Amino acid sequence: MKALQVRHGGVSLNETPRPELSGEALIRVMCSGICSTDLEIVRGYAGFEGTIGHEFVGVVEASDERPELIGKRVVGEINAGCGNCVLCLSGDTRHCPGRTVLGIKGRDGAHAEFLRLPAVNLLPVPESVTDDEAVFVEPLAAALGISQRVQIGLDTDVAVVGDGRLGLLCAFAMSTLTKHTSLVGKHSSKMNTAARYDIETFDASKIADLESRFDVVIEASGSESGFATALDLVRPRGTIVLKSTFSGKPVWEAWRVVVDEISVVGSRCGRFEPAITLLESKRFDLTSLISEEFAFGDALAAMEKAASRGVMKVLLKK
Amino acid sequence: MKALQVRHGGVSLNETPRPELSGEALIRVMCSGICSTDLEIVRGYAGFEGTIGHEFVGVVEASDERPELIGKRVVGEINAGCGNCVLCLSGDTRHCPGRTVLGIKGRDGAHAEFLRLPAVNLLPVPESVTDDEAVFVEPLAAALGISQRVQIGLDTDVAVVGDGRLGLLCAFAMSTLTKHTSLVGKHSSKMNTAARYDIETFDASKIADLESRFDVVIEASGSESGFATALDLVRPRGTIVLKSTFSGKPVWEAWRVVVDEISVVGSRCGRFEPAITLLESKRFDLTSLISEEFAFGDALAAMEKAASRGVMKVLLKK
Repeated sequence: MKALQVRHGGVSLNETPRPELSGEALIRVMCSGICSTDLEIVRGYAGFEGTIGHEFVGVVEASDERPELIGKRVVGEINAGCGNCVLCLSGDTRHCPGRTVLGIKGRDGAHAEFLRLPAVNLLPVPESVTDDEAVFVEPLAAALGISQRVQIGLDTDVAVVGDGRLGLLCAFAMSTLTKHTSLVGKHSSKMNTAARYDIETFDASKIADLESRFDVVIEASGSESGFATALDLVRPRGTIVLKSTFSGKPVWEAWRVVVDEISVVGSRCGRFEPAITLLESKRFDLTSLISEEFAFGDALAAMEKAASRGVMKVLLKK
Repeated sequence: MKALQVRHGGVSLNETPRPELSGEALIRVMCSGICSTDLEIVRGYAGFEGTIGHEFVGVVEASDERPELIGKRVVGEINAGCGNCVLCLSGDTRHCPGRTVLGIKGRDGAHAEFLRLPAVNLLPVPESVTDDEAVFVEPLAAALGISQRVQIGLDTDVAVVGDGRLGLLCAFAMSTLTKHTSLVGKHSSKMNTAARYDIETFDASKIADLESRFDVVIEASGSESGFATALDLVRPRGTIVLKSTFSGKPVWEAWRVVVDEISVVGSRCGRFEPAITLLESKRFDLTSLISEEFAFGDALAAMEKAASRGVMKVLLKK
């Protein structure tokens, strides 16, 4: 089968053997989404080598443990724990020190014709949710997962910094929890997408009036300047949520975190069920975030497109 | 009167007028302590110019609002709010955007023969607490204030990184809250001081076994490497408390905060009452942290001493 692989600091579309059956489920991938983390892995993030990709929807080809899934459309949680450590036994496989992560850590990923995952990780996709919607389950779950790290109430004043694909998903997710979601970005077309859903939008170059205003600021730009902006926007004793993983080591004004007694909270993955429920509700048209769809054979061109300025979600169709 | 002042990037002992009476209390300073923040201000931190110093014990000379304090030994909370903003009206003058801070922001400080503070900031010092102990109220309150930012229970596994004056005070404070306090440092003599109080001590160069072990790690070294060590020590979903203010902009591995879903929590000042109560209990001999006492006329030599490697608390006696 074909798989998009990172090896020796380069990315290429290679012919590789299908994953062997070994107790896990085998899934034929129908559609996968390119995430900024994929691009960061190519730049060296996480030191991962192998097949990249972790956003997908596919059809189960084999599953000894849950044979009822065979032939079903599924999405899959990306962390697989060792099953034996204290964290796994408490149900938190996401922080198992021996975990593998689909297309990120010790486990080949979704930009391939087939992938393998523990059957327990799979969730059937409701009929009303299309493939192009279902491929957003993973990043939408990550956005909704913020509320597992920070309490967001109806009156919490939340700002999202960054109007890229992650920023918009975070803004959408937050607007289901609070009446006050703002998006700080640079691209009027993306801001317009948010404004359609009662999200207040602000140009990042004109935020002097917003200083120290927000209870919670979500840094979703993945840039050093984004974190500095978040420090400007958050109120004393407020919370900054870090969502972006990137390979660099940014500098930061640590003293401001001390003096204003700010909390900086990292947030990674989220549970899939709430994301599937939100997609079923059709509250947001996530397909409007798709910039372009590529046939899988053009995966390298798709990666290039996804890395271009201003591009939102790029999908690979198998 | 004489005052230790920072002007145009230099520090000098100057002859200046006594503070004018203007509704606030006038205090004759008997003893003041040199804090790392004083040293950082000389290096440019906070852009402050004027009399530095914020740890003191003194005698009230004048106080229209609380005349019962006249002649009494007092310590004083260092933040003075505007009194009119939402934060001040809610009782949180520490984050008033228009606040002044003794010897740090818009208000002359304690390394002087006299200082001024709002009478409401003053707390009488119990007779059983000596001057050399009372001068530790402010930094001890800051250490105890960590528990206002992070929940510390009897079984919380806490590590303090940094065995300087702040680190030891943090370790002392934490050991009153949890059965499990560890100190990670570099100087055996300082570690021995901590070990006397059932605090487990570890050499900073030998912590491979401690990785991802602690629920809460307090960064009290004020160094970039200290924060990296804190990231090594904290467990996934654990909390790093930032205590040190310093002028630099450190680099940090932000991605680790995201992937391990760590919380980084800034903590600045604390309430004075619990610190006074702890001093009254005589549980810790804080005077053992005093490296040297200088007559106020030798304040410049005292500052030099305080900046030397391995030196703990340096006091100025008036």
